[in-house]
Parts: sequence; structure tokens; C-alpha cells
Amino acid sequence: MTNRRERALEVARRASAEALLAARPSTVTWLTGFAGEIEWGSSPFALSPLALVTSDGPPVLVVSDDDAEAAAATGCEVSSYRGFSVEPIDAVGGASRALNAAVGGRRVATEPGALPAALAETIDWVDIGDGLRLAQAVKDDDEVALIRGAIELCDIGQAEARARAESGMTELELWSLVRLAIERAAGARTPIVADLVAGPRTGEIGGAPENRPIREGELVLVDLVPRRAGYWGDCCSAFAVGEPSARAVEHHRVAYERLERVLEAVGPGAVAGDLDEIARSGLDYPHHSGHGLGADWHEEPRIVPGSRTVLEAGMVVAFEPGSYGGGEGVRVEQVVLVTQDGCEVLSSHRLDL
Amino acid sequence: MTNRRERALEVARRASAEALLAARPSTVTWLTGFAGEIEWGSSPFALSPLALVTSDGPPVLVVSDDDAEAAAATGCEVSSYRGFSVEPIDAVGGASRALNAAVGGRRVATEPGALPAALAETIDWVDIGDGLRLAQAVKDDDEVALIRGAIELCDIGQAEARARAESGMTELELWSLVRLAIERAAGARTPIVADLVAGPRTGEIGGAPENRPIREGELVLVDLVPRRAGYWGDCCSAFAVGEPSARAVEHHRVAYERLERVLEAVGPGAVAGDLDEIARSGLDYPHHSGHGLGADWHEEPRIVPGSRTVLEAGMVVAFEPGSYGGGEGVRVEQVVLVTQDGCEVLSSHRLDL
Repeated sequence: MTNRRERALEVARRASAEALLAARPSTVTWLTGFAGEIEWGSSPFALSPLALVTSDGPPVLVVSDDDAEAAAATGCEVSSYRGFSVEPIDAVGGASRALNAAVGGRRVATEPGALPAALAETIDWVDIGDGLRLAQAVKDDDEVALIRGAIELCDIGQAEARARAESGMTELELWSLVRLAIERAAGARTPIVADLVAGPRTGEIGGAPENRPIREGELVLVDLVPRRAGYWGDCCSAFAVGEPSARAVEHHRVAYERLERVLEAVGPGAVAGDLDEIARSGLDYPHHSGHGLGADWHEEPRIVPGSRTVLEAGMVVAFEPGSYGGGEGVRVEQVVLVTQDGCEVLSSHRLDL
Repeated sequence: MTNRRERALEVARRASAEALLAARPSTVTWLTGFAGEIEWGSSPFALSPLALVTSDGPPVLVVSDDDAEAAAATGCEVSSYRGFSVEPIDAVGGASRALNAAVGGRRVATEPGALPAALAETIDWVDIGDGLRLAQAVKDDDEVALIRGAIELCDIGQAEARARAESGMTELELWSLVRLAIERAAGARTPIVADLVAGPRTGEIGGAPENRPIREGELVLVDLVPRRAGYWGDCCSAFAVGEPSARAVEHHRVAYERLERVLEAVGPGAVAGDLDEIARSGLDYPHHSGHGLGADWHEEPRIVPGSRTVLEAGMVVAFEPGSYGGGEGVRVEQVVLVTQDGCEVLSSHRLDL
């Protein structure tokens, strides 16, 4: 049993349950390594994957037949039901039977914000509450390796954006090149949360790419959050196509300076709210200063005003101060692993303008 | 009130409820026009959108603040809760309060395969069962227009695939060009379910693009299912890079002939299972012969063996017989609108080899 399964079971026991039923897809990934398709929404043929973690054996993944092979490849047991077929569709009935075969009458602690009511009705469950959030924040070694793999995709995407951006190219055209570089490196279609904007929208923090052409002298802001093998990377930089304006240079100077200062303060015992204050000092951005990441793209520790969360070695945290105004903006983001005596920067992409 | 809202409420009344709570994202889209982000899985900040449909006013969309503006643009009312912010995350609590403000103590018929247990606990609900499936199959005029818009993206993607495919290019490289053509036409990032494979995997029905280079004389199979403004298109063709093999020509001949025959038989009163038999005759494919589509990418009428569903004017149906074997395969797919006296083919992409 890995450390994280032990931590999750301990949270379940505190909720007076002997087993944990993971219902959020990211919790399922965290506990089993199984990461289902997410790029085209829910399937008519299947419900979201579930995972039952007990103290007496590997987790059981409850998935449709379509995912059974990939689920078994994780080393978990599989309780599956009919997925894509020419037979009548009964995803709820199938999932309910497969779930109950796995649960076997146990009382489970679960995530009722994700578990469908139709399944919850058929089992004895209790709300695990927010207990998993902090249990997820400290990564096991294999998780750090997976995050490194996702950040490799970040670095590749950032490099491609800088190498290929030119005036006259649209945001969507640049996005297409960036995405191809990432998918080529991954060898597969890759879910990516992203900001990719040029010009005035950099001053509005970001947004999705559009058909707008990039113009000479404009900033391009690129924030890439790709998922690889179930784990998310994160990265942001902004750079100028041609000569940046004096304002852009100043945005970059102050944002980069805050990133350097906050990373100097990162280490075990640092308090998230204090780090937020360091990152935000002298700047005026409306978003968080950073966040944990892993099987989800936004986890604890959240680097936000007032947070009392204390950093521990093994946490993986993105920091991303930004400076915006006057129709331009720069955000610089790196991901770090908290170590025994500070942090290791996992990101390798360029942060200059 | 549109026809589909009336039909949905009638289904709710038959389930002894005075209102309908849509919980599947595609049902929400169908009843309100609101289509949320789906390309990167569930959000840590929000639950899936919900929609309450009553007889006394427009539907109420229950969404996070992040989606409130887009939700209001549909003309629906909005009951929203805090989404992305630097404040503590409480998506379940927020969604629960916003939902209860909308429901106001009514008994609602809902989709418990999608409604989270944490929300279901706080309202009086009954399972609407499968009643919506057939109610969704006949499209209103505005839905047909939306599907035409999505099929326009299909046509553009298919044309790009044929124009750009060449030996030495990888599947992922071709995919990138196809996707860019679609996103350029849409002006935005676009969710797309897709098969895009060359060579032997065409004989295995399809799959996702990989780094495999396309070779001279190989078939390329392209099945594109893009979502535009909440509605899905669908299309498939296969074509040869260079000279097709005699086997490929024969696969194409028999699959195309079956597509022609089944479309001749489409019209009001046709039985789905009979159409499946016509499409499948002489072929041996493991998948459906077709399916409805709309706010979901696979709806009634399902064109599968034994189905007794009767086609009606206003249904929109994809037909996609395929012939596979010997390491090659061809599937040809067109989408039709069932009319008073037959059908109108909505697809315009090339189907030759």
C-alpha cells in the first residue's frame, strides 16, 4: 500500500468508515493511477470512474468495459459494467451493480459532491468532507515523478510558443503549434487548460486563444496546464514579439522580482498566507499567488490571503505572481517541490520577456 | 417556452413532479442552450451546471460565478455561487444554496445518475428515468440550425484532412492541422471526439492519433465529432494516401453501398432496428449502424439490432456502416434530418476513397 492510500484510509476512519470510495475523477487518479478520458465531457455509456480503497488489498476500480483494460493496467482490481455497445444503455444500473459488488455492504466514506445520487442510494455512505484535501497535498515519490513528466510538457510548450510566435500569426495558430509540440512529446492527445492571448488581453490576466492576429511589439501570455498520465503540470510566461514597451518591461521586472522573493521564502514551515503576502507585495492581481497541483490542477496548499496552511516537504506548489495594467500584463509561474530545507524548482522554461 | 421545454415538463409530470431539474450537462444544454467547459474535466471550484425548468418562467441555471455571464446570455435566469477566487473553496455548499434558492421546495424530477448526492440530499426529488431520451430525439428548428453549424465544422475538418494528408506526416501532425482548421472556423477552442488513424488501425475501427507516420498507399480513417455552441456534429470518411489497395477499394465499395441503401430507407415510420439490418447487411462491424445526436454525441434513435424505436420527422441521425478486415477498414458516415417524406442529408464532406 502506498503512503497516500494509507493517508486516505486514515481520513476515512476518522469519518467512521472502514473504506474510502473515491468519486471525484482526480481522487480516483490520485489513489489508483487510473486517468480516464476527460476531453469531451460525460459519456452516454458510462458514469465517471469510482475507486474503493480498503485496508485488505488493492483498490477496486469501478469502470465501464471501455476502461477495464486501462484500469487493470494500474494493478488495481476492476469491477466493470457494460459500456459502449449495441445493447440497450443502462449506465446507472450497470455502475450500481458493479459498485455494490465492490463495496459488499461496507460503510464507505465518500465525496458526495461527485458521487451520483443514484449510486449513493444503494450503499451505506458518510461524507468524508474536506479531509482529503490536505492528505493530497504532500506527494509520494512516484507522484513527484509524474508531475516532473507533466512539467516536461510545459517546458516543451513554452519553448515552442517562443520559437514560433511571430507577428501576423493568430493566437489560435500559435496555440495549434504549441499543442502539437506537447502532443508529439506525449505521443497522444493531451488535455490542456490554457491561457494563450496576445496584446490587450494580456492586461486582463488571460483567456482562450482566438482568431486575433499577434501584432509586432505585443506581449504574448502563455499559461499551459497539461495532463500527462493523470498528473497536471503548470507554467506561465509572457514574452514580446519584437520590442516590448517600457510598460511591459516594468510589468515583467516587478512580477519576476516577486517570484524570486517568494521562492526564497518557500520551505517546510512556511505559511501559505505569508507566502501570498510576499508574492503579492506591491502588485495588484485578483488571483491566487499559487496553488498545489497533482492529480488535480488546483490543490492545497492554496497560496491565498489569510491561508494558515503550513507547507511541508513533499508538497508541489506553483507560484504565479502577475502584474497587469494599461492593456498589458505579465505573469511568471514556476512549480517547485518543497524540500527539507527550501525548495527545488521543477520548471525549466524561460521567464524573460 | 420552446417545444422541448414543454416535452421535458410533460415527462416530469408523468414522474409526478411539477418541475424538471436537469443534471447531465448535455440535458442542461438541451433545455437552456448553456454549454460549459468540458475539455479539462471537473473543476475544483464548481460543480456541473444544473437547470431547473418550471411551467412559470424561463429555466433557472445553477452555475458558479465563472459561468454566470454566459448563463445569463442564454436568456435563462441564473442562481449562482462563488467560483474561482482567493476565498476558501466550498463548491458543494455554494451549489446547494443556489440550487435550493431556485427549487424553492418544489418536488423535482431529475437525473440521479448525474445529480451529486450532496445536492440530492437537500431537495425533494424523483427519478425521471429514461423519459427524456425520446423527448430529446426530435429536434426543434433552432436545434437543427445548431447541428448544421457543427456539421459545417465536420465538413471543414474532413476537407483539411484530405488536403493535407501525405506520406511521412504523423497522425498527430495531421490531427493538429485538422483541429486548427476546425478551431479557426469556430473562432475558438473546440471539443472534438475523434478517430484519426492510418494503416493497420483503420482495420480496428479507429483510435486516437499517435506519432505513427502515414505511409504511401495507406488508408487514413477520420471520424470527427466537434461541439459548437453546445451541439455536436459527426462525420466519418476514409481515404487513401496514394493508390489504395484492392482490399481498400472493396471495403469502400461495400460500406458506401450500405450507406446509400440505408439512407434510401430513412423516413418517418422507419424502425431503427430495421435500418440497422439494412446498413449491416453483408458487413460485419461490431458497432452501431448509427445514432441520434444533438446536445449529446450519442442519442436516440440508436440504430442498433432489435431496436423498436420509430423514426419521426425532426430527428437528426448519423449513419455509419463500416467494413473492416485484413489490416484495413473504411467507415462512411453522414448525418441526416428526417423529413416528412424521407430525409435531408446535412453532411457535405467527401466520401470517396
